Amino acid sequence: MDILKKRILEDGIVLEGNILKVDSFLNHQIDVGLLDEMALEFRRLFNCEKITKILTVESSGISVACAAGRVFGVPVLFAKKGNSRTLSESTYREESYSFTKKESYVMNVSKKYLSASDTVLIIDDFLANGLAIDALLGIVGQSGARLAGVGIVIEKAFQQGGKKLREKNIRLEGLAIIASMTNGKITFKE
Amino acid sequence: MDILKKRILEDGIVLEGNILKVDSFLNHQIDVGLLDEMALEFRRLFNCEKITKILTVESSGISVACAAGRVFGVPVLFAKKGNSRTLSESTYREESYSFTKKESYVMNVSKKYLSASDTVLIIDDFLANGLAIDALLGIVGQSGARLAGVGIVIEKAFQQGGKKLREKNIRLEGLAIIASMTNGKITFKE
Repeated sequence: MDILKKRILEDGIVLEGNILKVDSFLNHQIDVGLLDEMALEFRRLFNCEKITKILTVESSGISVACAAGRVFGVPVLFAKKGNSRTLSESTYREESYSFTKKESYVMNVSKKYLSASDTVLIIDDFLANGLAIDALLGIVGQSGARLAGVGIVIEKAFQQGGKKLREKNIRLEGLAIIASMTNGKITFKE
Repeated sequence: MDILKKRILEDGIVLEGNILKVDSFLNHQIDVGLLDEMALEFRRLFNCEKITKILTVESSGISVACAAGRVFGVPVLFAKKGNSRTLSESTYREESYSFTKKESYVMNVSKKYLSASDTVLIIDDFLANGLAIDALLGIVGQSGARLAGVGIVIEKAFQQGGKKLREKNIRLEGLAIIASMTNGKITFKE
């Protein structure tokens, strides 16, 4: 998605530990118009599926998932991290680990909102090691829902997350796929 | 906003400690169409102001703020909780406390994205004791930006947050204002 790649090259900052900072339009300040363009692109890429629900995880996935929910015309569901007092009923629960925050956490999705009758599109902002997506896949698996695929805004192809998903024959679409970020220079995969 | 009040009465669950659970359409599963209606209502209520930025705090505020950002045609900025590795530069920083999670936390907003040239509309899902909004107001104050007002989806008028803001002559608009939730029965303020 050229408009997104251009923005990443203009605004993205490469930090130590292979972290790409896109705080000016995605992870802190949000360019809502760009979100809408991304959502239309996801719709184009996943156009053969009768998707019934968009699934993401708080926090950075929510904005993209909501834009997608609008375009697909379906509800958005975001997995909650930790043990919320307002999520006391029975949940699908998975453990994950954040390399950015260097901490383990649990993800919860209420059983009320995801079931075997759903066809789910997982949406998230980044795919690197893929641990957050693994946990979301675990939740979809527990629910018995059908998985339409995984839509990612920025995939870091030099980390293992994308490779692992494709090996499982999971349909994965990244809007911008980064081949390398060596010495702070971002190169996209063609 | 009648469509919202109706949804709260149909789907809202009152928990111990004056917690209102609206997980079916706002805080876990999200009804994107309803978000868009809320955003239009915020636009109608804050129509005299030349707003340049929507400010909220992660996580539950993000979906509503993004819907508002789309309608107002301005960027959304969400305060980050805790100390993120991707937010290392200079930030406006405020402390707050979550009664739901029973824990203190810090909120950060990068100085790059908020300045004295901005006119800010603060958006959040709930207003109860008002501590999260106080912290956001502190951030706006530090930045020197002009405050257009505070837009809230659900205000609990029997708690002190709204009263405190109105005493400070801050323009506050709640789309659904709850007068009481005694014995699990939700009554709206007229």
